[in-house]
Formats: sequence, C-alpha cells, structure tokens
Amino acid sequence: MTISRAEKSLYRSLKIKKEREETGLFLVEGIKPVTEALLAGFPLERILISDNVAESERLRILSLANDKNVAVVSVAYPEIDQISSLLNPEGVLAVAKISAKENLLAPLTYPALYLWQINDPGNLGTILRTALWFDCRTILLSPESVDIYSPKVVRGAMGANFRLTLRTNVDIHQIEMILAHDNSSLWATDSSGTFDKPTLADDRFILAFGSESHGLPPEILQRAAGVLCINKYGYGESLNLAVSVGIMLHTIRQK
Amino acid sequence: MTISRAEKSLYRSLKIKKEREETGLFLVEGIKPVTEALLAGFPLERILISDNVAESERLRILSLANDKNVAVVSVAYPEIDQISSLLNPEGVLAVAKISAKENLLAPLTYPALYLWQINDPGNLGTILRTALWFDCRTILLSPESVDIYSPKVVRGAMGANFRLTLRTNVDIHQIEMILAHDNSSLWATDSSGTFDKPTLADDRFILAFGSESHGLPPEILQRAAGVLCINKYGYGESLNLAVSVGIMLHTIRQK
Repeated sequence: MTISRAEKSLYRSLKIKKEREETGLFLVEGIKPVTEALLAGFPLERILISDNVAESERLRILSLANDKNVAVVSVAYPEIDQISSLLNPEGVLAVAKISAKENLLAPLTYPALYLWQINDPGNLGTILRTALWFDCRTILLSPESVDIYSPKVVRGAMGANFRLTLRTNVDIHQIEMILAHDNSSLWATDSSGTFDKPTLADDRFILAFGSESHGLPPEILQRAAGVLCINKYGYGESLNLAVSVGIMLHTIRQK
Repeated sequence: MTISRAEKSLYRSLKIKKEREETGLFLVEGIKPVTEALLAGFPLERILISDNVAESERLRILSLANDKNVAVVSVAYPEIDQISSLLNPEGVLAVAKISAKENLLAPLTYPALYLWQINDPGNLGTILRTALWFDCRTILLSPESVDIYSPKVVRGAMGANFRLTLRTNVDIHQIEMILAHDNSSLWATDSSGTFDKPTLADDRFILAFGSESHGLPPEILQRAAGVLCINKYGYGESLNLAVSVGIMLHTIRQK
C-alpha cells in the first residue's frame, strides 16, 4: 500500500491554514504526538510511517492503530520529508480530522483558560501541554489567535490538544454568555493585578491571559471579578506567557 | 560612517559558534535586547541601525549609546538583513563582547541554577529571563549544553543574559568544589522527587535541572540533598523545562 500523488499533494498542503479549513484535516508529526492521538482515540484519517522508525516504536504504533481501526501506510522516508513541516522529521505522521464545531453552550469544565490573541505557536503548544498537566481541560481562544491546528502548535502540545476541549473564535460577547449560563466568573491576569489566585471556594472560573506584547484589552480587565499577577523579585519587563500560565495554574492547584 | 565588506563578513559569521569563540564576539538582535545590553552597561563593540527603525526608538538607542560610549553606525536595511539570523530583523543589532572567563571560585549569588545538557536555545533563553525575574542571578551550564551566545538564546533571553552571572562548561566535579567552598547545597529536580522546595532556612542552594528528554544523570540525583518535583493533577509525561523552572523559582520565593 502506498499513497497517490494526489494524496501526497493534499497532505503537503496542510501546512497552510486555508487548506486545513477547506479539507477539515491537519497534520500530526512525530512519534509522541501520533502515539498520543491514538491513545486519546482522536479521529485520524491515516498514519504514514517510514522504515527509519525503530522497530519497537513502529510495532507500538501499528498495534495502537489496529485497536483504533486507523489505516497505517508504509512510505519511503523522502515522502514523509516532503509532506512534513519539519527539517528532520521523525518518520511518522498522521492526518487528523478537525472536530466539528461544538455547541457553544455545551457544558465547559472548570477552571478554563481564555487566551486573547496569542500569536506565538510555540507558546500556545506549551500552554496546552501545561493546562492538561494541571487538569485545566477547557481552552477558549479569541479571534485573531494563531491557528490551533498549525503544525508548530500541534507539535508543541505534545499530544495535549487531543485531550482538551478547544474552542476557537470566542469573543468577549460569547464569554459573557458562558459566564451567565454557567454562573462562573472571569479572572484576568495583568501586571497591574493585586491577587495571586482567584478568591473563590471552587474552580468555577475562566482565567484570561493576553498576548505578551499587548496584554489583555480594557474590556476584559474591567469585566473581570479580579486581576491576578505574579510578583517580580528581580528584574524584567514580563515573564514568558507559557511560564506565566504554568505559575498561575500551579498556584491555583495549591489549596 | 558605514561598515566595510570585511566587517560585514565578520558579523555574518557570528551565527556560527566556532566563529564566536575565535573572535570573542556575538550578535545581539532587536530593539529590546540591544536596549537592555546598553542599560546593563554590557561591553558592545558597535551598534548597527537602519532607517526603518521608528524615530523615538532610534533616538533612545542613540542617546543610551552616547552615554555608554558605544559607536552607532547607520546602515541600509538590507545590510542588517544580511547579517541577521532572523527572517524579518527589526533593523537594530549590536556586536557584543564575550566576557573573559571568571575565576571559578569567585563568590556566586544564591539561589543558583545548574542546567544539565540543555539543548533547546529557545528554552534556555526563556529560563534566563525567568531566573532574572525571580532574582536568581547565577546560571551554571554543564558541558554539552547549547551555546549561550547563540542568536536564539540571546533573543529569547530578552536582555536577561546581560545581567546574570553565566558560567559555562561546569562539570559535576566543579559543582562539588563550589558546594565545598561556599558551604551550599545541591537540590535536584526529577519526576521521582518528594519535596516541592528545598527545606532550608536560607537561599544557599544550587537547583539542578536536566534536559527534557534525558533528565538529570544519576550522579547528580545521588549527590543532591533532596529531589524536588511538581505535582501532576491531570495528564502528561512532563512539563516544558522553562515552565518547570518558573514554577520552582516561584515556589521558592513564596516563603
């Protein structure tokens, strides 16, 4: 079994956002992300694997794919290389299906993150991975954020994206609807903040983070029940965004 | 004033580690890192600036450079572009001097970080920035770590590298000498850890972190006074290294 020229051309095109949107497909690259997609039962169209992958890893992927009924196609390494977004791909990639839009008012889990215009794909991937570690399983992204299905985000997430509830294009009006429907609260993060964590008895809150360069807009800061910050002990203008998310979620979990 | 062909060729070569070592020079790219180098009084050979830089930022750099007696050369944007390691450089770069090796037994400040075979330059840059925020001003790097003067590290550090004490090629034997000389202790981080922070009355400790893929070697884990870890509440194999450093340093600062 091999792949046709048309398939190869389709898969190569998935590096481009417009093509992902039109086809409803995205690329998952590398042993760890592909394994995690399989373990999470995420819908995969197929897996491509080349013979440079170590036997033990190859067998693990084949066995998992068999359990989940996903087709695995053996290809030559140059084929992977041509499809991949990476300079030195590991020799495994999957073509995955973008899930259909969820009902906006389906129940969320709390605490949730609201990320405002995050544009660094590496940061977003790391944030997804960090959120899952701290059992924060709902991630809401504002309009004009980096595409969550871009290869760099998927790679940085190390598989976390397959286990999280991700909603894109969530504007402040939709946040208002969620808060009203769920009777939950919104907490913002900003260097002007005065709390180190939400002053609540439960986890029913959405924690909002802005981009490193612009922070959160005034309408979110004003709407928030409180503004959180991380104390500075030394010198610097700001912390890296993913580092900030990690520190905040860790603080929240320490009751 | 402009730059000669020989100078341009020298500056372009500074993307390569061997050339940096031979010349004792490295590149600082972008408005923020160059401004921070000037503010910190770091030794700069010269600054190149092109006319696409906004007037206010141009004047700020010129004024700071004048205070610190650093030559600023106006060049055309394509010249910056040819020297730079970036796809879309901001139009400012500095050529900085690698400081002479410090005496190994000169006093360190505590807490200090010991980074073992860190090979991701983006992670290392973010760690430097995070360490300075939490006033952890001594960073020791093991042999076989990424070069601290590589453009990606310098860029990710956002200027923190100009205010930290950085020592490279520090092996476990040298760590032993430092511990004995300073009467300080070594704490390791590992998923097998049992403490969330050092159980000490003061800050006289070195906190060791391994690479994401391999962690710390047994000789460091065995030598440590204690092993620290970050509790997992959800799912995942590990946290990003810079996120882990941020959470640990934040925890240490919360007395």
